[in-house]
Amino acid sequence: MSRFDERHAEALRPVRIESDYLLHPEGSVLIQVGNTKVICTATIEDKVPGFLRGQGKGWITAEYSMLPRATEQRTPREAARGKINGRTMEIQRLIGRALRAVVDLEALGERTVWIDCDVIQADGGTRTASITGAFVAMTQAIAKLAEEKQLARFPITDFLAATSVGIVEGQGAILDLNYVEDVAAEVDMNIVMTGAGRFVELQGTGEEATFSREELNELLALGEKGISELIALQKEVLGELANKVGGA
Amino acid sequence: MSRFDERHAEALRPVRIESDYLLHPEGSVLIQVGNTKVICTATIEDKVPGFLRGQGKGWITAEYSMLPRATEQRTPREAARGKINGRTMEIQRLIGRALRAVVDLEALGERTVWIDCDVIQADGGTRTASITGAFVAMTQAIAKLAEEKQLARFPITDFLAATSVGIVEGQGAILDLNYVEDVAAEVDMNIVMTGAGRFVELQGTGEEATFSREELNELLALGEKGISELIALQKEVLGELANKVGGA
Amino acid sequence: MSRFDERHAEALRPVRIESDYLLHPEGSVLIQVGNTKVICTATIEDKVPGFLRGQGKGWITAEYSMLPRATEQRTPREAARGKINGRTMEIQRLIGRALRAVVDLEALGERTVWIDCDVIQADGGTRTASITGAFVAMTQAIAKLAEEKQLARFPITDFLAATSVGIVEGQGAILDLNYVEDVAAEVDMNIVMTGAGRFVELQGTGEEATFSREELNELLALGEKGISELIALQKEVLGELANKVGGA
Amino acid sequence: MSRFDERHAEALRPVRIESDYLLHPEGSVLIQVGNTKVICTATIEDKVPGFLRGQGKGWITAEYSMLPRATEQRTPREAARGKINGRTMEIQRLIGRALRAVVDLEALGERTVWIDCDVIQADGGTRTASITGAFVAMTQAIAKLAEEKQLARFPITDFLAATSVGIVEGQGAILDLNYVEDVAAEVDMNIVMTGAGRFVELQGTGEEATFSREELNELLALGEKGISELIALQKEVLGELANKVGGA
Amino acid sequence: MSRFDERHAEALRPVRIESDYLLHPEGSVLIQVGNTKVICTATIEDKVPGFLRGQGKGWITAEYSMLPRATEQRTPREAARGKINGRTMEIQRLIGRALRAVVDLEALGERTVWIDCDVIQADGGTRTASITGAFVAMTQAIAKLAEEKQLARFPITDFLAATSVGIVEGQGAILDLNYVEDVAAEVDMNIVMTGAGRFVELQGTGEEATFSREELNELLALGEKGISELIALQKEVLGELANKVGGA
Amino acid sequence: MSRFDERHAEALRPVRIESDYLLHPEGSVLIQVGNTKVICTATIEDKVPGFLRGQGKGWITAEYSMLPRATEQRTPREAARGKINGRTMEIQRLIGRALRAVVDLEALGERTVWIDCDVIQADGGTRTASITGAFVAMTQAIAKLAEEKQLARFPITDFLAATSVGIVEGQGAILDLNYVEDVAAEVDMNIVMTGAGRFVELQGTGEEATFSREELNELLALGEKGISELIALQKEVLGELANKVGGA
Repeated sequence: MSRFDERHAEALRPVRIESDYLLHPEGSVLIQVGNTKVICTATIEDKVPGFLRGQGKGWITAEYSMLPRATEQRTPREAARGKINGRTMEIQRLIGRALRAVVDLEALGERTVWIDCDVIQADGGTRTASITGAFVAMTQAIAKLAEEKQLARFPITDFLAATSVGIVEGQGAILDLNYVEDVAAEVDMNIVMTGAGRFVELQGTGEEATFSREELNELLALGEKGISELIALQKEVLGELANKVGGA
Repeated sequence: MSRFDERHAEALRPVRIESDYLLHPEGSVLIQVGNTKVICTATIEDKVPGFLRGQGKGWITAEYSMLPRATEQRTPREAARGKINGRTMEIQRLIGRALRAVVDLEALGERTVWIDCDVIQADGGTRTASITGAFVAMTQAIAKLAEEKQLARFPITDFLAATSVGIVEGQGAILDLNYVEDVAAEVDMNIVMTGAGRFVELQGTGEEATFSREELNELLALGEKGISELIALQKEVLGELANKVGGA
Repeated sequence: MSRFDERHAEALRPVRIESDYLLHPEGSVLIQVGNTKVICTATIEDKVPGFLRGQGKGWITAEYSMLPRATEQRTPREAARGKINGRTMEIQRLIGRALRAVVDLEALGERTVWIDCDVIQADGGTRTASITGAFVAMTQAIAKLAEEKQLARFPITDFLAATSVGIVEGQGAILDLNYVEDVAAEVDMNIVMTGAGRFVELQGTGEEATFSREELNELLALGEKGISELIALQKEVLGELANKVGGA
Repeated sequence: MSRFDERHAEALRPVRIESDYLLHPEGSVLIQVGNTKVICTATIEDKVPGFLRGQGKGWITAEYSMLPRATEQRTPREAARGKINGRTMEIQRLIGRALRAVVDLEALGERTVWIDCDVIQADGGTRTASITGAFVAMTQAIAKLAEEKQLARFPITDFLAATSVGIVEGQGAILDLNYVEDVAAEVDMNIVMTGAGRFVELQGTGEEATFSREELNELLALGEKGISELIALQKEVLGELANKVGGA
Repeated sequence: MSRFDERHAEALRPVRIESDYLLHPEGSVLIQVGNTKVICTATIEDKVPGFLRGQGKGWITAEYSMLPRATEQRTPREAARGKINGRTMEIQRLIGRALRAVVDLEALGERTVWIDCDVIQADGGTRTASITGAFVAMTQAIAKLAEEKQLARFPITDFLAATSVGIVEGQGAILDLNYVEDVAAEVDMNIVMTGAGRFVELQGTGEEATFSREELNELLALGEKGISELIALQKEVLGELANKVGGA
Repeated sequence: MSRFDERHAEALRPVRIESDYLLHPEGSVLIQVGNTKVICTATIEDKVPGFLRGQGKGWITAEYSMLPRATEQRTPREAARGKINGRTMEIQRLIGRALRAVVDLEALGERTVWIDCDVIQADGGTRTASITGAFVAMTQAIAKLAEEKQLARFPITDFLAATSVGIVEGQGAILDLNYVEDVAAEVDMNIVMTGAGRFVELQGTGEEATFSREELNELLALGEKGISELIALQKEVLGELANKVGGA
């Protein structure tokens, strides 16, 4: 059971999170998961979308994009085509929803956190890298806000990270698929979990294929392992800030 | 543990599938799941999208829409707004991907099956009702094609249906959420399974909440039960055609 | 002089109006004119477009759409194409304008009635069926409003229905064209009239052809006959509500 | 019964058609009807839209626009808004359809005549002035084509002009409404007729009002009178070319 | 060194500015530069864009368009294509920016001057003709405003005109390029200058070519000559109004 | 005469060009000019736009974008707004046009070089940094092409770089404006020049101001100095490849 890049089935690719990557944003990181590189930034805006106005709650929203040559072949810009495609929309909605699960929106107050994930280089797993990186950028930005505005309690309730698992013919269940593995996968699952080991999002898809309950169990175990390693790295990168997350 | 509409936690709403609902399409049904009503049609086109041309394989693609007053409040038309929103895109992609998992695209030949799901009335579960109904419309359309073109083997390899499960405060895990339950749900999961009891798609989401592995197990069991009932109904509606599905 | 479907030249197709067709809207009908089926709904909104604000008058606006497989060949969705085509715009404007002719907009107050006409199945005459059906849905919705808000006078001043007439080679002038006749017609005219027998809209078009004054007279007589039959049916469907229309 | 500009009820405004108005187009005029000024051009393209390809027939299509300050208040450009509004679409379709009624599309061959009507100054009746002017520009362009390509027969079968009639409170039925009259009109009707006195298009609309059969008759008589005067002017402007129209 | 139209290298084409060309706008001209004809209008609106609100300053903004048959071949309308192309945007921005350089925006007050330049006929130099003509239309509109509102000082501080210069193989440096010369030019430069002989805008472009400092000097001298002639004509057309420009 | 960041008037900011910055593109650099950072990539496509097909010539086209948080305040994505704004279009057109001036399009053959410039961090001068960086990425990509396809001659004829110069009150003429200086500038000029010291593009703009011929001369001298330094750096980064540029 050998993988294209010689990893063990249950191994993540090398992961690196460089924080304060950009000058202007309140929070920003460059996350690298193998050859996948994503710039994640967090911006705090002092208002909420119309449907939330006047309820004393905040909101987290995310946008996702790829540079045209993040990919092997050049991908035409969505701005040039004048519309955002379905895949991008799905990913944006997933990132925002996932982050909201670990934010106490009342503690945030009537503010919106804008998350921007821009893929500089793509080699599979861009959406899960985006979630893992965006959590760090968001925590930095919210920590600045919490201090400036003297928020009563810290709005982030737990850690959050994401990875992919899948079943590839001849390799069985594997963790953290790169692009070649993703294309070859019969079953592909994105998992988002918290520091407490609870699920936030589970998206498993048979690609013109199906999977059994036993296979599902195996995939979930792999995902849980990978996510706990990613969260350990987030804690290291965040340093002292990590203590505020979920704090009393 | 009582539900808003007095159902048992593990009960589907009343389901009815009226086939040959429209005059023109090759396959068409009106599916009703409680107060949710969706018209599903299947159209066969003798060409495939560009990325598949010349490979001898077919394609299944789906479009989804709601009448403005399918909902309690009037929802502006996407045509009038000039763009399709993220939720619609996600649902369209889900329906097409799910159906492709039980179609032998080579047996279909270089043809596209267009699935149209138009929600006439919405009361929760419109995407899962769309998949369950679209499977029947698609089977009818492909059966006509198979006969006319004398296809070497019947392209549909198994039955396919979908339902939702969720966790609602005070009610625990429940099957087939209506709109009120969907809004109240902390965890919401859509499950698509085959006649053989294998998973095609699993989309579980904590709505500003999370769920444990035990809760996941409970949800999966409920979903499996509901889907086997839906597939039994599909077989009844399809009559003799049901024998062709997955046939040797 | 025999028609494709054996009708007399001056005969309408069988017409059926099913009211309270949907759960949510204030007014809703399914109108069937032969094989043409349209769902018409009416929604009341408590504001008016910008150009009317502050004048104490209401507005009636209409939207029209067809399901992709309402037609023999699948018609691509306007939402997917990102814009509404000219034919749809013309029909929407016609429906709104026609209904406004029998509504006392001051009596309505600063409110908008949204009319949605969605063609489920098309076999010619979809715009005239939409007007005839929408009148019933609008009357139901306005009657509820009139009661709830204790309007000083009932805002609907007369009945309103529409039909088509045309000249088809070998058949002369005929009433209520179905799709085959519509395609074959040299002259096609849509007529909208009130219960008092007055014209609201007259749209006659030579399709790469022309027509004389004598032919026009013949067409108008046929139209008048058809509309009086449609209005008789509206009265029957509306029951007691019919007495409110144009009432002192 | 006196009009705002002191005209008789049955009088056209002063009409002037300046031909060969622009350097580049195959046919071009500036038509002035009172203060309404429209530049009409005709362009011949050597192909037809997809739905006509290979049938040996031609097509006439029209586009219509107004300069932002053609109107009293500045009207935002449709290009800046990114879409064409319903009124413009209706007018474009009307102009194209009307012209097609007097063109033998087989004699034209597989070619498209593009008509462009750009309103430089608007004072009511811009769509009817566009049709009257466009007929002259189209005739010039087609005459050049007929000579260059030695067409077997001249493709224009009759003259064509358009005007408006209406009913204005206190003035009764009047011919050729200017903007002030158009706004005040209860009934507004656009009439397109041929040199032989046959109807091509009849669009009568009660503006939140209705009209009787007697009023209709009166309006049609006025329109017929106005159109015969406009066609006399077209003949004068076309000079010798006028003899080719409908020629043996 | 002879030009296609026999002009001297340093000669402008015949220029004519017809003022008060349209009925409705506060300022309007038809400017003709050789065969190039542009209608320029100025409209004053009593508000400013969001980014300027509350600062007591005004704004000048411009829109530019060409009739489809202003050109040799028909150019599709931007409204029909649903978006404005890059060339149009560049020109619009240039016209607005250039005019703002000679307007005292504080003296104008919180008002926007909308400039519309519509090219009726194109033969090269449409953007520079637009600027030269728009200056006259703007001056007329602002003069009316200044009188009506009794502005404390006249907001226009200097004259402004524009022309093009270029280098064409075999002809050397030439002034005021027509379309044929523009296509043939290796270097093309648009120059906008004030009555005081100061530069406002300089846009020099090597078209798949480059130019030396000496060539640049030669081009600037030609441009300066042409602009002083254009400003002399503007003064003549403006008559007494010319005295207000830059007045104490 | 001291600048905000203590530079001399005639000093560039620190410039760094990191080549082979991304994995997939044929050419890619990260260029840093002070705090401005742009990723420039070059992609070669084996076809040309429609207007060039069959002429044996190639094309260079550029796209430009900024990450939302490249700027101090978050800038909404153009993809989300559904259209590209005027500033972006101007910059894209400038980059493409400038690069074409030093490419022998016949030697390139029927191929398109796509240049993508994505601003990661913005502090003034993003368009000139884009040109300077894109030249290096393009040279790398074309060098690979030249080798693979054994092109008869190397298509790049000279070096090319760009910088900005301007006049800021109290500082006089300065080189390479950062964002704060750009906002304060009365006159702003972008200059693109070749290795041979010839002009390719000159865009000077008075921002609600004007400039004299003497000031122009001073600005041009500063720009020439800055560009020669940038080209020296390009040569260093390109190493041996630099010898191919403009080679015999």
